[in-house]
Amino acid sequence: MPRAQPTADLRGRSVLGSFFHAPDPDAAPLLASALIEIDLDGRIVSVTGTADPGYAARVESASRSGSLTRVDGFVLPGFVDLHVHAPQYPQLGQALDIPLQDWLQRYTFPLEARYADLAFARHAYGALVDDLLAGGTTTAVYFGTIHGPATRLLAELCVARRQRALVGKVAMDHPDLCPISYRDSDADAGLHGTRSLIEEIRTLPGNDGLVQPVVTPRFVPACTDRLLQGLGDIARAGHCHVQTHCSESDWAHRHVLDRFGRSDAEVLDGFGLLTRRTVLAHANFLSEADMDRVALRGSGVAHCPLSNAYFAGAVFPLRAAMQRGVRAGLGTDISGGPSASMFDTVRMAVAASRMLETGVDPKVSPEMRGRPGSRIDIRAAFHLATAGGADVLALPVGRFEPGCLFDAMLIDPAAPGGTIRLWGGESEDDLLATLLYTASRPNISSVWTAGGAAR
Amino acid sequence: MPRAQPTADLRGRSVLGSFFHAPDPDAAPLLASALIEIDLDGRIVSVTGTADPGYAARVESASRSGSLTRVDGFVLPGFVDLHVHAPQYPQLGQALDIPLQDWLQRYTFPLEARYADLAFARHAYGALVDDLLAGGTTTAVYFGTIHGPATRLLAELCVARRQRALVGKVAMDHPDLCPISYRDSDADAGLHGTRSLIEEIRTLPGNDGLVQPVVTPRFVPACTDRLLQGLGDIARAGHCHVQTHCSESDWAHRHVLDRFGRSDAEVLDGFGLLTRRTVLAHANFLSEADMDRVALRGSGVAHCPLSNAYFAGAVFPLRAAMQRGVRAGLGTDISGGPSASMFDTVRMAVAASRMLETGVDPKVSPEMRGRPGSRIDIRAAFHLATAGGADVLALPVGRFEPGCLFDAMLIDPAAPGGTIRLWGGESEDDLLATLLYTASRPNISSVWTAGGAAR
Ligand SMILES: [Zn+2]
Ligand SMILES: [Zn+2]
Repeated sequence: MPRAQPTADLRGRSVLGSFFHAPDPDAAPLLASALIEIDLDGRIVSVTGTADPGYAARVESASRSGSLTRVDGFVLPGFVDLHVHAPQYPQLGQALDIPLQDWLQRYTFPLEARYADLAFARHAYGALVDDLLAGGTTTAVYFGTIHGPATRLLAELCVARRQRALVGKVAMDHPDLCPISYRDSDADAGLHGTRSLIEEIRTLPGNDGLVQPVVTPRFVPACTDRLLQGLGDIARAGHCHVQTHCSESDWAHRHVLDRFGRSDAEVLDGFGLLTRRTVLAHANFLSEADMDRVALRGSGVAHCPLSNAYFAGAVFPLRAAMQRGVRAGLGTDISGGPSASMFDTVRMAVAASRMLETGVDPKVSPEMRGRPGSRIDIRAAFHLATAGGADVLALPVGRFEPGCLFDAMLIDPAAPGGTIRLWGGESEDDLLATLLYTASRPNISSVWTAGGAAR
Repeated sequence: MPRAQPTADLRGRSVLGSFFHAPDPDAAPLLASALIEIDLDGRIVSVTGTADPGYAARVESASRSGSLTRVDGFVLPGFVDLHVHAPQYPQLGQALDIPLQDWLQRYTFPLEARYADLAFARHAYGALVDDLLAGGTTTAVYFGTIHGPATRLLAELCVARRQRALVGKVAMDHPDLCPISYRDSDADAGLHGTRSLIEEIRTLPGNDGLVQPVVTPRFVPACTDRLLQGLGDIARAGHCHVQTHCSESDWAHRHVLDRFGRSDAEVLDGFGLLTRRTVLAHANFLSEADMDRVALRGSGVAHCPLSNAYFAGAVFPLRAAMQRGVRAGLGTDISGGPSASMFDTVRMAVAASRMLETGVDPKVSPEMRGRPGSRIDIRAAFHLATAGGADVLALPVGRFEPGCLFDAMLIDPAAPGGTIRLWGGESEDDLLATLLYTASRPNISSVWTAGGAAR
């Protein structure tokens, strides 16, 4: 019975192992010793638990036909990172102590402008895609730059390395917010570049749907009305995903209110940019009416707890939003957040929710300090980072269920150089918490997208 | 010119490399290409920068005498982890969603009780010391359990593996707070056990001062007055370090106020437990008068930002305390905090300080939300994790200066399996931020205490 190697292709195989997933936001994650049958396209055909009827017969049959692969360790769905600024990877962890507007003008826009150089783009994007896959991120939602060629290259690299991705050319044309050295020359240029990239990604050689385009207005303040309206039209006509920033900080929230007399969510909705396939990054300052609107449109939030600590000035009220029906997942927000790891993001999502719940200032009385009912636990964060993110994107991944694509990572608790210690006798809950809190990159021994080895 | 191997002993060598340290809390960290001369006891004799007079001659002389070792990468002081519950390592990351008191009674005390079994203790403590060293922690301040033999064993393991450590037998005798299955039978038993362990650690074969005893009342609520008074007497008579928890949560803070009509800090001071070598874990709810008292006594705070997110209900007002003259360093608080990594602790110290500064609840106006002036940056956190912690302990480590012991780690940015990406041209500030935010265990290629290889 062959055991999975880091490079094993699981398409057309039946995989015997221990699988953890969290399909339901309100229920505990499930651990199952199971046989998962994967078709030649990487889609899960059947999941048969050890206690299910026919289990022994299926294992026996797969073994006889030579299609059985056994994996040691624990298989988790690959992470869905809903918010990544691909060009910002070279400044990960840097310049986090200056305000958002300074950070954009002095660090971020000049760095993004460098992607006019395709050699630089190849170097940086190649490293990013490799590193995210090595960290267990099988789906990434990427902001590129304003440049068509570099953004197309990012899509090509994802196809070549087998990372599922949404890739967007950033659209930004507002002369008040965007420096002349780094912006679309006008709305038409932004719209033309967006349309071209959509076409190019959809027709990329070898792209069987793994990589999809996404309409990407940077954020409302950076775009003229004409650009926003045109992007809404493109999204609708092209049945495209949409991503943008929404009410991230006091400043951004206030800026949009001052310009339109309406909130980000209302403005985006007015331009047709709030759809079932829209990802709103951050969304910290959504009002309850905004949440209801977002829920009604079926859009989702990319909650980026690490980034929020530095640039948002508040914690996204995740529980409140979910209770109002808003879809949610997690994002690293590279490089607003200083980590490329979705493990770190999962951990911070829990910690930030606790800090919102209890408050932070010991001078304030405990009754007044926090916002009761805000906490999530590590199991809920695991759901958000996998099935939750997939639901935001309306992609059939993040769960081990028939019909889903097999996007997954193998956690080897005993990997050399790893950081997991198991002691025996852990409950399922404790085992999952231990894996999620203590795993590091060496513990991720295999990563698959649609059943194919991603590295 | 030999290059350092993971096992290289640097005692009696002259080390040529790039050194980052942060001796001053208010100044930027220093990066120097330098030659550091280490004596046979592991003490730094001289530090000569490339621009210093005599640099070339010293390198030449060391080269001729065969005592020159060149290290590639970046050398940082080893981390000082001011707060570790050694016996809790097997539950790292588990059960973080229940209140402190439940967590103690249902999870923690039963686990700690298992260290009556020396075989279990050897297994768990061995793994912990290995893992902390591998993570760059060259000094750890350990709470053990109530058991003399297991705690002595922990000290032996630190000596054998060359981890600098303070090791304390936990004293806890209060029948209202401590279960009958896990407590000192009375104050005398706690005092006798403490005295015995101090003597045993000081006379451990092979211990040349690397491992020292520390008087360890668990926290005021768990100790009778008689025990606290006796421990204060022992600390004074034996010139011993002291560690305990102080005003960690609303509950603990209130409990002590109700029992004594005074705060933790006042009560500890009254029992002689607030000394120049006292480590107060957490200290979130210190009043300003408490801070002044702690500063006056020269005691220090082990700030544990990860743990505080789960159990304290507030962020320690680090900046305010430092401005009042309180010494401070960082602690993981294994397993109140879910990570054994001081890198994670450094990162969270920055994020938590930002969240205290801005506040967390977007429903509150920005003017009312936070506590201005609370932030620290990654450079200050680096200071706290190294020189700051060393200062709390009054130990000559944490800095690359003549007279200090050479406790250090080597960061290899290009290590296989590592997570650092350098792109060339980083400023010193950006380089340090990149190392601190993105390093993971594989990047720590060597660790030394007093110049000797710790693993
Ligand atoms: Zn962003
Ligand atoms: Zn503690």
